[in-house]
Amino acid sequence: MDLHTITSPSFLKGLNNEQLVELSEDIRRFLIENLSKTGGHIGPNLGVVELTIALHRIFDSPSDKLIWDVGHQSYVHKILTGRAAQFDTLRQFKGLCGFPKRNESDHDVWETGHSSTSLSAAMGMAAARDIKKAGNHVIPIIGDGALTGGMALEALNHIGHANTDMVVILNDNEMSIAPNVGALHSVLGRMRTAGKYNKVKDDLEYLLKKVPAVGGKLASTAERVKDSLKYLFVSGMFFEELGFTYLGPIDGHDLEELEENLLYAKKVGGPVLLHVITKKGKGFLPAEEDKIGTWHGTGPYKIDTGDLVKSSSTAPSWSGLIAESVSKLARTDERIVAITPAMPVGSKLEKFANEFPGRFYDVGIAEQHATTMAAGLATQDMKPFLAIYSTFLQRAYDQVVHDICRQNLNVFIGIDRSGLVGADGETHQGVFDVAFLRNLPNMVVMMPKDENEGQHMVKTAIEYNGGPIALRYPRGNGLGVAMDEEMEALPIGSWEVLKAGTDAVILTFGTTIPMAIDAAEKLAEQGINAEVVNARFIKPMDENMLHSIFKRSVPVVTLEEAILQGGFGSAVLEFAHDNGYHDATVDRMGIPDQFIEHGDVSELMDEIHLNSDQLVQNVKNLIPEKSQAGYKAYDQSEKRTRRCSPG
Amino acid sequence: MDLHTITSPSFLKGLNNEQLVELSEDIRRFLIENLSKTGGHIGPNLGVVELTIALHRIFDSPSDKLIWDVGHQSYVHKILTGRAAQFDTLRQFKGLCGFPKRNESDHDVWETGHSSTSLSAAMGMAAARDIKKAGNHVIPIIGDGALTGGMALEALNHIGHANTDMVVILNDNEMSIAPNVGALHSVLGRMRTAGKYNKVKDDLEYLLKKVPAVGGKLASTAERVKDSLKYLFVSGMFFEELGFTYLGPIDGHDLEELEENLLYAKKVGGPVLLHVITKKGKGFLPAEEDKIGTWHGTGPYKIDTGDLVKSSSTAPSWSGLIAESVSKLARTDERIVAITPAMPVGSKLEKFANEFPGRFYDVGIAEQHATTMAAGLATQDMKPFLAIYSTFLQRAYDQVVHDICRQNLNVFIGIDRSGLVGADGETHQGVFDVAFLRNLPNMVVMMPKDENEGQHMVKTAIEYNGGPIALRYPRGNGLGVAMDEEMEALPIGSWEVLKAGTDAVILTFGTTIPMAIDAAEKLAEQGINAEVVNARFIKPMDENMLHSIFKRSVPVVTLEEAILQGGFGSAVLEFAHDNGYHDATVDRMGIPDQFIEHGDVSELMDEIHLNSDQLVQNVKNLIPEKSQAGYKAYDQSEKRTRRCSPG
Repeated sequence: MDLHTITSPSFLKGLNNEQLVELSEDIRRFLIENLSKTGGHIGPNLGVVELTIALHRIFDSPSDKLIWDVGHQSYVHKILTGRAAQFDTLRQFKGLCGFPKRNESDHDVWETGHSSTSLSAAMGMAAARDIKKAGNHVIPIIGDGALTGGMALEALNHIGHANTDMVVILNDNEMSIAPNVGALHSVLGRMRTAGKYNKVKDDLEYLLKKVPAVGGKLASTAERVKDSLKYLFVSGMFFEELGFTYLGPIDGHDLEELEENLLYAKKVGGPVLLHVITKKGKGFLPAEEDKIGTWHGTGPYKIDTGDLVKSSSTAPSWSGLIAESVSKLARTDERIVAITPAMPVGSKLEKFANEFPGRFYDVGIAEQHATTMAAGLATQDMKPFLAIYSTFLQRAYDQVVHDICRQNLNVFIGIDRSGLVGADGETHQGVFDVAFLRNLPNMVVMMPKDENEGQHMVKTAIEYNGGPIALRYPRGNGLGVAMDEEMEALPIGSWEVLKAGTDAVILTFGTTIPMAIDAAEKLAEQGINAEVVNARFIKPMDENMLHSIFKRSVPVVTLEEAILQGGFGSAVLEFAHDNGYHDATVDRMGIPDQFIEHGDVSELMDEIHLNSDQLVQNVKNLIPEKSQAGYKAYDQSEKRTRRCSPG
Repeated sequence: MDLHTITSPSFLKGLNNEQLVELSEDIRRFLIENLSKTGGHIGPNLGVVELTIALHRIFDSPSDKLIWDVGHQSYVHKILTGRAAQFDTLRQFKGLCGFPKRNESDHDVWETGHSSTSLSAAMGMAAARDIKKAGNHVIPIIGDGALTGGMALEALNHIGHANTDMVVILNDNEMSIAPNVGALHSVLGRMRTAGKYNKVKDDLEYLLKKVPAVGGKLASTAERVKDSLKYLFVSGMFFEELGFTYLGPIDGHDLEELEENLLYAKKVGGPVLLHVITKKGKGFLPAEEDKIGTWHGTGPYKIDTGDLVKSSSTAPSWSGLIAESVSKLARTDERIVAITPAMPVGSKLEKFANEFPGRFYDVGIAEQHATTMAAGLATQDMKPFLAIYSTFLQRAYDQVVHDICRQNLNVFIGIDRSGLVGADGETHQGVFDVAFLRNLPNMVVMMPKDENEGQHMVKTAIEYNGGPIALRYPRGNGLGVAMDEEMEALPIGSWEVLKAGTDAVILTFGTTIPMAIDAAEKLAEQGINAEVVNARFIKPMDENMLHSIFKRSVPVVTLEEAILQGGFGSAVLEFAHDNGYHDATVDRMGIPDQFIEHGDVSELMDEIHLNSDQLVQNVKNLIPEKSQAGYKAYDQSEKRTRRCSPG
C-alpha cells in the first residue's frame, strides 16, 4: 500500500493477515529506501516492524500509551501514525525528528533519546490512570540493553511491588548498541534457550504423579516443586521475582503469535512482561549480519551493495584520535584502564580492548556504575580513562560530584560528543557539561583546538595527578592538522594567544576557534585588530593572561559551543568582578537558554546566531568608535539574539 | 575493655569468644553513651557491632578493602581502627566525621554518604587488584535499602557477569531509613522466611530417589529438579541469577556464625553474596522498637528515658510546613500527587500519605525513577510534587534535564535541605542545585524568605502551568513568623525590596536574608544606606528591578548559600553584561570553590566568611568614599576569602 495515505493507525484493525504481511514488506522497503538517502537508525526499526503493527492493532493509541524506550526505534510507529510523507526530512533541520516528539503527533506521548526512562514514565502514566480511574493501557517497549540501566531496574522494582496494571514489552534483539554485557544479558540468554516450556512442564507433572505420598512434609515439598516449575524451565525468572507475570519468549516477527500474546497480556492485569525476540536489521542483509553495531544508526548508504557513503573528511575522527592516544600511552603505563558504558564502537575503543583486554571494561548501559568504578580504580593508584558522551555523562552527575570530585581522585574523563551533535537533536546535544563541571571543586576541564593539541591533552591528563581531569572533544573529525611525533603535557591552566591584537580579545576554545580566527580576519579587513585566545583550559583559567587582558581595558568577547548560563563566559565575568575589574566589557556568545533541536550543526549554529558574522558584529558593537558605517547589522529582534549580544 | 586503647584492629585476632562478646557490649555502651551527647546514626551502628568485629577478624584491613555503603554505619569500624577518643567531637566542626573519611584513617578506603555506590567502588578496587595481581579481598557492605538504588543494580549486574572475586555483605536490617518498599524487598523477605535450606534439601533428595527411572527424558528432568534446589528453598534467587554465589541468610549478631560464613565466603572465589540479618538499634530498646526511622539518626537523647532532646525552636520545620501546605491544596486539587524517594519521614510526608494514600508514592531509594515518574504523571495533567533533598536531586540530574525540562512538564520539585545542612557534612550539603538548575531551559527556581512566603510559593508552584518549578527550602525550622490565613500565588519572577537604600544593593534569597538585614542595620549605624532585596526567584530573575538597579549605577552585592561558580551572583553578572551595563559593580558572596565539611552551620558560615560582618565589609569596600576609618577589615590573605570579596 502507499504508506503516505496513512493518517491514523485505526486502518490496521481492518486488515487480514495477508495484508498485514504485505504492509510489513512495504514498511521495510520504505525504510530501506528512505534511510539510504537520509541515514538514520535502520537496524532497530527493521527489527520492530511486526511488533509495532501488532501493538497498534491490539491497543488503541493514543488513549493507550505506547512509550518507546530510547526512541530510535519509533520510525514504524511514525509511519503508522501518519508521518510517512515527512521521512525525506528525517533528522534534518526543521524536519522529522529521529525520536518520539510530542509536538509531532498525539501518538508520541513521551519523548526519549536517553536509555532506560520508559518504565518510570509508564509508572507515572499508570499512576495517573489509576487516580483518574481511566481504563487505558500503558505499554512501555524497552530493549534488553536498556534494561541494564539503573533507573530501569529501579522502576521494575517499584512497578512489581506496586502491582500496577502495565504491559511491558521486552524487545530482546540480543544486541543493544554494542554486544550487550552483564549478567542480566546472560539471564535473558538462558530464557531464550530454555525453549519449550510447556513440553517440559508436562514431563514434570507426570514425574510428580509418580512420587509416592510419604507424609505431610514431603507432600508439601512436592507442592513446592510444582510451584517452582517456572524456575526450572525459564531459569531466569528475574521478572517473576520482581512481581511481574512473565510471558514469552515469543517470535517478534510472527504477527499471529504477537497478537495472541498481546491480547492475553492485555487481559492478565497487574504488571506483565512480554518477552519478544526480534532481529535487528530484519529484511536488509547487511544490517541483519551486522555484529558490531555499524548498522545501528548510519549515514546514507547504497542499497544494492550495502556500502556506507563515506565521509568526505580524511582527518581522523576525534573519538579515534583520543582512543589511539590513550592506547599509545597505555603501552608503557600499566596504570591506564579504559571504561565505556556500552559505547566501545562509538568511542573507538575496540583497538584498546584488543590490545589490553585485561584493562578494558565495557560495563553496559550503566553510566553511574562506570563513573564510580573509575573512582574505585583511582583509589588504587590506577589511571582510569572513562570515555563517555557529554549527554550521557549527565546520568552520572552525582557520581562525578561525590565519588570523583569530592574524593579528588585521578580520573581522566574523556567527554566525547561535546557541543552540538546535529542529527540526533535535543537529547544528544552536549551543551551542559561546561556549566555543570566547572562549578565542581577540584575539577579540571579542557578542550583542544585541534587533534594535535588533543593528543597533548591526553598526555596532560595521564600525567596529571592532582585530581579529576576532563577532556572535551566534539563529534566528527578533526581538522586534518599535522601531528607531532611526541605527545607532550601542557601546563594546567595555560592559555595560548593564537593571534595578537589590540582592539578586542576573543576568548574561546575547541570547535569555535576556527570561527574566531575567521572573524578576526574579517575584522582585520575592516581595520579592527582582534586578539584570538585559545582558552583551552576552561577550569582553571589562565589567571595571568586574564589579568593582563583586563588590565589593558580591552573589550572581551567570549565564545563557546555550550550553554551560556553559568558557562565559560560567566567564569570570565566572575574572574573580572572577583578581581575588581568592575569596568570590564565582556560580551558572551554561546548556546542560548533553550534546547537545540536536530539538524546540521552549521544550520543550528546559524539559527542561534553562533557564527563568525555575528561574532564580527558583536566585536564591532563593543568598539563603536572603530566600527565602520554600512556594515549590515544582524536582526536583533529575536530574544535568542539578545542573549548572544547586548541589547 | 577501654576502647580508647585500641590503635589497630589487629588485637581482635587474639580475643576468644567470651572476650569478643564483652567487647561487643563495651562498644554498644560506648555508642549509646557518646551519641546521647553528640547525636548521630545510633540505629545503624548498634546493628553492625558483631558484623564489624567479625569482618575485622576474618579480613586484614586496610590491605583488604572494607567499603561501607552510605557510610553512616561506620562508627564501630572507626572505634576498632583507633578513633574512640575522637567520638566526643563526632559530626562537629573539625571533629570526627560521621562517614568514612580517607584523611582520618588508612582503614577508610572509600568515602560515602550517598547510597548505593559501594559495589561500583568495589568493582573498581577489584579490577585494580586483578590488574596488579595483588591478592587482597574487596568487601562492600551494603544495606537492603541501598540495593534498590539503580547504580547498585548496575554494579551487581556487571560484577556477576565479570565473575570478579568479591565478598558482598548484604546487611539486611529489614528497614532502611523508612520502611523499605519495592519488590526487591519482598524478595529479601521471602529469603528471610525461607529458613532451613539444608533440611528441606534433604527432604527433596529423598523424594528424588523415590522417582522411578522412566527413560532419558524424565531422568534429565529429574536432574534439572536437583539443579534447581536453590530456586525451591530460597525462592528469591535474584543474586544467583546475576552470577553470585549466595550464602545465608545468617544471624548478624551471632559472632561464630558470622565468622564461619565469612571464612567460607573468603575461600569460594568469584562474586559471593553473604546475606546477614541484623537488627537496627540492637541493644538499645527505644532504637530497637523504632518502626518509622526516628532512631536512624538523632540529635542528643536521654539514655534512661529514650527521650530526644527537643530542639529549642518552636517554629515549624521547613519540611513540615511545605508538606502541610501541599496537603492543604491537595484537599481541593485532585491533580496533586506526592512522591518521595525513601524519605517520607525526613520530608514530613506521613500526613499526606495518610490523608491521600492513593496519591502518595514512596518509591524507595530510587531518585532517578522518582523524578521520571513525576514527569510521566505530568504528561497526564497531574501535578506531581517531588520532595527530594538537594544533595539527592544530584542523582536525578539527567532526568531533570531531559525528562522534565526538555519536555517542559509541570513538575513541582520541592528541594528540601537546600544550602548547608551541618553535621552530615560534605556529602549532604545542598550547595550545587542553584548552579545546576538555573542553567536548564524552562526551569523556574525560587526560595522563600520565611515560612509564610514558603506557603505562598507552594501555591505558586501548584498554580503554575508553564513547566517545571523548583522550591528550595533549608534544613531545620522556619523563623516563627505569622502565617497568612490564605495561600496566594506570587507573580513568577517577582522580587521584593525589603529595605530601600541608595548606597548599595544587597541581592539575596532564602536563608541569607536575615544576614543581609542584619548587615544593612550595621551599615546604617555607620551612615551607609544599603538596600536589601528578596531575590526570591533565582530563575527567572526580576528583570525590571535589575534594570532599575543597574540604571542607578549603585554597587551590588549578591549573597547566596550556594556554590559561587555559575550561581545566582553569576546570573546577576550575566544580566548586567548581556544588557550592556558593563560598568556595573557587582561583588558576589557565597560558597567558595571547595567542599564544605561537617559542623554547625553557623561555624561553617564563619569559616567561609559568609556572615554579616563580612557582608558589611564587602559593601564598604565597594563604596570607599562612604566607609569610615577604623572599621576592622577582615583578613583577606586566604584564597577562599578572595573568592568572597574582591582583591
